[in-house]
Amino acid sequence: MDKQKLIETQKRITPYIHRTPVLTSHLINNKAGAEVYFKCENFQRMGAYKIRGATNAILQLSASQRSKGVVTHSSGNFAQALALAAQSLGVDAHIVMPSSAPKVKMEGVKAYGGEIYICAPTLSAREAEADRIVKETGATFMHPSNDPEVIMGQGTAALELLEDYPDLEFVVTPVGGGGLIAGSALSAHYFGKDCRVIGAEPFEVDDAYRSFHSGKIESNVTTNTIADGLKTVLGDKTFPLIRKYVDDIIRVTEDEIIQAMKLIWERMKIIVEPSSAVALAAVLRESDRFQGKKVGIVISGGNVDLGNLPF
Amino acid sequence: MDKQKLIETQKRITPYIHRTPVLTSHLINNKAGAEVYFKCENFQRMGAYKIRGATNAILQLSASQRSKGVVTHSSGNFAQALALAAQSLGVDAHIVMPSSAPKVKMEGVKAYGGEIYICAPTLSAREAEADRIVKETGATFMHPSNDPEVIMGQGTAALELLEDYPDLEFVVTPVGGGGLIAGSALSAHYFGKDCRVIGAEPFEVDDAYRSFHSGKIESNVTTNTIADGLKTVLGDKTFPLIRKYVDDIIRVTEDEIIQAMKLIWERMKIIVEPSSAVALAAVLRESDRFQGKKVGIVISGGNVDLGNLPF
Repeated sequence: MDKQKLIETQKRITPYIHRTPVLTSHLINNKAGAEVYFKCENFQRMGAYKIRGATNAILQLSASQRSKGVVTHSSGNFAQALALAAQSLGVDAHIVMPSSAPKVKMEGVKAYGGEIYICAPTLSAREAEADRIVKETGATFMHPSNDPEVIMGQGTAALELLEDYPDLEFVVTPVGGGGLIAGSALSAHYFGKDCRVIGAEPFEVDDAYRSFHSGKIESNVTTNTIADGLKTVLGDKTFPLIRKYVDDIIRVTEDEIIQAMKLIWERMKIIVEPSSAVALAAVLRESDRFQGKKVGIVISGGNVDLGNLPF
Repeated sequence: MDKQKLIETQKRITPYIHRTPVLTSHLINNKAGAEVYFKCENFQRMGAYKIRGATNAILQLSASQRSKGVVTHSSGNFAQALALAAQSLGVDAHIVMPSSAPKVKMEGVKAYGGEIYICAPTLSAREAEADRIVKETGATFMHPSNDPEVIMGQGTAALELLEDYPDLEFVVTPVGGGGLIAGSALSAHYFGKDCRVIGAEPFEVDDAYRSFHSGKIESNVTTNTIADGLKTVLGDKTFPLIRKYVDDIIRVTEDEIIQAMKLIWERMKIIVEPSSAVALAAVLRESDRFQGKKVGIVISGGNVDLGNLPF
């Protein structure tokens, strides 16, 4: 059933998203000892794969639901993704953002026509404000990752990658809330040929690694990582898929993330956000298991603050 | 004859270079009021179009000449281009670099197998050292821009762009030594349909603008520009072609260069060097003349020092 759902999801969202290119680098292949295929979602609309899931989730709403709008709380890419997806589909988007959110992200949401509600920078304040909007407007709440339709949408990036390179032996993606890796794992399971899926995560926020091994959803005490998209934890929709379909999770240091990011910027001449570099960092760190293999990496996005780079 | 030469040049160098993609951006099109097509030579081998001319020049040498190697003096992209082209063709490359050249550039030359000769950071010291090597080794000296074979090679980027988009009404390139724009102008003349060619240059090094209008090769007193690839002046091979085939030269401020560079990085998620941003800056500065037009821009390269960005 999930296989058919993935096919339908891809068909549904294709008119609203870019088919992003897959790039390669001789130098990085030599360094990794593998054939690495980068699925460049940094070239996706609004600069990240998140538009896929947001678009799919809105498209699954009824006409009556759509007329009442959608709500999310996010300080990151999903805020912009939902605003843009909603704009494309003529739906109102209410975006709750903590007062601590970067100004550039707020401007992005505004540019995509989203209505911003600023709240205190705590999860409870964000949730309370989103609840209030749902009650007042009847808008539908959308979670950035822990939602079956969002997961299906995010999985279409790996699906496209496997359409282009059907004999990939690994797909590696970063893990934050788990929407991208859960969707990718479904795609690899149904459309790959014995393709293993590996998650990549900073040591500093290794909740997915610990959850994967303990069998229950773990949280992070601190989130001191440059990979700002990976600070969230798994949910009850993403975690079971990860346990079932993901092969392993590799953790990397902050220095490895920065070095991998620099390598991609310098050699591939593309701008990727730190969260995306985590996947290459994992392939380089544990290069033994990827020797001579065909490895797909989902470059999750390219939204960075150029005034605040780690180089 | 030049038309036939361009066709032969393209055929000759194609096995040794990448066919680079052409990218577009809705947001930049809206900002410019034009359809802008970016020929992405930042994705070219060694990160810049210069490999085209270097490869063509070496391929035109006799077997006996090739066996004695090639020489150039350069602190920039041509040093790396000649080293890599020579390496690909099994030819020795002697690269004279001023002691002031960035370490990263020297490492690039070394990585491509070039032999580096460090000299005092003056033009006369560079020329003297190159002369000495020519006399000692019998190697052939190659100029980064003022050489008919180099010009032909550089022109193949615009030729590919016009193959992909035959109805471009403008091609805009940066102007340094003039190799890129002279070659591009030849390609537009022979393969475009009434396609005008515009040069883009910083106010701070506007020798080409002044030369274009005075009718003789002018020099720069100072070179205070971030566009480090454009500090050189025209030569007796490039200037006549520019006078004959180039329509105009637009000058831009340093702030306009930085803003255009930031726009490309942030919105297109690609890394371009300041010299490349000069061309977009010119299109945005004088947007009146490009309204509603199809405009090709040659993104000359993407080799930047990430530790020293202007943002």
